[in-house]
Amino acid sequence: MRVGALSAERPVVLDDDDSAYSLSGLTSDIDGAFLAGGGIAAVRAALGRGELPAVSIEGERVGAPIARPPAVVCVGMNYAAHAAESGAAPPERPVLFYKHPNTVVGPNDDVLVPPGAEKVDWEVELGVVIGRRVRYLSSPDEALDHVAGYVLSNDVSERALQLEVSGGQWSKGKSCETFNPLGPWLVPADEVADPQALGLRSWVNGEARQDSTTADMLFGVAVLLHDLSHYMVLEPGDLLNTGTPQGVALSGRFPYLSVDDVMEIEIDGLGRQRQVLVKA
Amino acid sequence: MRVGALSAERPVVLDDDDSAYSLSGLTSDIDGAFLAGGGIAAVRAALGRGELPAVSIEGERVGAPIARPPAVVCVGMNYAAHAAESGAAPPERPVLFYKHPNTVVGPNDDVLVPPGAEKVDWEVELGVVIGRRVRYLSSPDEALDHVAGYVLSNDVSERALQLEVSGGQWSKGKSCETFNPLGPWLVPADEVADPQALGLRSWVNGEARQDSTTADMLFGVAVLLHDLSHYMVLEPGDLLNTGTPQGVALSGRFPYLSVDDVMEIEIDGLGRQRQVLVKA
Repeated sequence: MRVGALSAERPVVLDDDDSAYSLSGLTSDIDGAFLAGGGIAAVRAALGRGELPAVSIEGERVGAPIARPPAVVCVGMNYAAHAAESGAAPPERPVLFYKHPNTVVGPNDDVLVPPGAEKVDWEVELGVVIGRRVRYLSSPDEALDHVAGYVLSNDVSERALQLEVSGGQWSKGKSCETFNPLGPWLVPADEVADPQALGLRSWVNGEARQDSTTADMLFGVAVLLHDLSHYMVLEPGDLLNTGTPQGVALSGRFPYLSVDDVMEIEIDGLGRQRQVLVKA
Repeated sequence: MRVGALSAERPVVLDDDDSAYSLSGLTSDIDGAFLAGGGIAAVRAALGRGELPAVSIEGERVGAPIARPPAVVCVGMNYAAHAAESGAAPPERPVLFYKHPNTVVGPNDDVLVPPGAEKVDWEVELGVVIGRRVRYLSSPDEALDHVAGYVLSNDVSERALQLEVSGGQWSKGKSCETFNPLGPWLVPADEVADPQALGLRSWVNGEARQDSTTADMLFGVAVLLHDLSHYMVLEPGDLLNTGTPQGVALSGRFPYLSVDDVMEIEIDGLGRQRQVLVKA
């Protein structure tokens, strides 16, 4: 994970007892170069040898657990019930869009509501952080070897910008500042037994909203990476948001978010986030 | 401009006589930090004092004139006649999508055709490079002060990926590797008298395709930046592709590109590009 002020986060690791150790002697940041260069293995080795200095992170701001991604790639409509609640048929192929990488903030940072925005919505998602360059994979079986780890991601959206004044291109409603809370932790890929068997949930002001499982994805992580690899290159440090399940405000079943509302999301094993909505 | 091998480009400047001078003593790269920190003024001052060492760039590869952008933001359907040839009405608001920043290559690099891609298309575009953070501008009149410079950009597209297997989201057909040739030069904003009065043209195998002017944009650069600033933050080093005029293959008037075809594009004052299509 990364702790400290925005843009000045310091890398740390938690052991199995949730004790924190500084990674500053190993790397300046948790970025693509670190992940591609065997960084996670180096952390484990150093932790095992007792070489990492213990640090207290109590009271520290928690940042996004990875440095600014080269790209934030998103897959939309990747759960059938969410496609249905959005008024769409399940897609036959993965649907791709992007967020500006500067939308990524810490898991508990405030989310800023743009002036006049009345349709701000939550989206709990499994985030995939790339560890090795993904290009023309020959099979989905190869894909998960390219994943550095998994992370909890909130693909915050403003539905009027996304759907009503967008000419049909969703990115406009996905790119507002602070619209991608990420973390608290990057969990190494080999510590997630099955990325397609994770419960994921969201709440607004303590009331349940989404409650689903990554087993319901239309296209699982391995299939997504294989598919994407045939028309783009994903690189170390890239973040792939894999879509959200049913239970968002767009469904009409719940009100959109307002200033002072509180969003909470979690995924089994990947931690929990809490954001307060405030005026931009 | 930047010359040298891919990912190892060196920054240089051309004077009014097209003599080249090294910028390596001033900056390691032409990136957002350099542009935001008064880099262009520093180059002019050093050039004026005769402090920059002359270099020969003959025979050197020309790279993209800016370092990897934090984001490549694109506006679609920004010329009425191109919207019409694409079968769409002119949009009432700017239409936003992205390319992966790793699509950016040099102006004369080969463009790679993905296996099976039969609808690769050219798009000459005015590229805008951001020099100051763009956030909640109060008026389009403020916008152009945030531009570091202008650049020639080829928003290469694969129309089947963009339109037929995309679920309607264009980014899939915009993100293939090498799909954003950029350059040869970044022209400082104050050396472009009017960004809305530039002729822009393209050719395939020497035959004319597009021949238009930025005066025909539906939303000019200042209006675009003002509009975008209300739902995203653009930052120094970001590239904004401002849309392409009529005359692309999607119109049905010209064949799509094949391996061994040659694309050429130019914009008045911003130089010229030439790419050969080769198999990925």
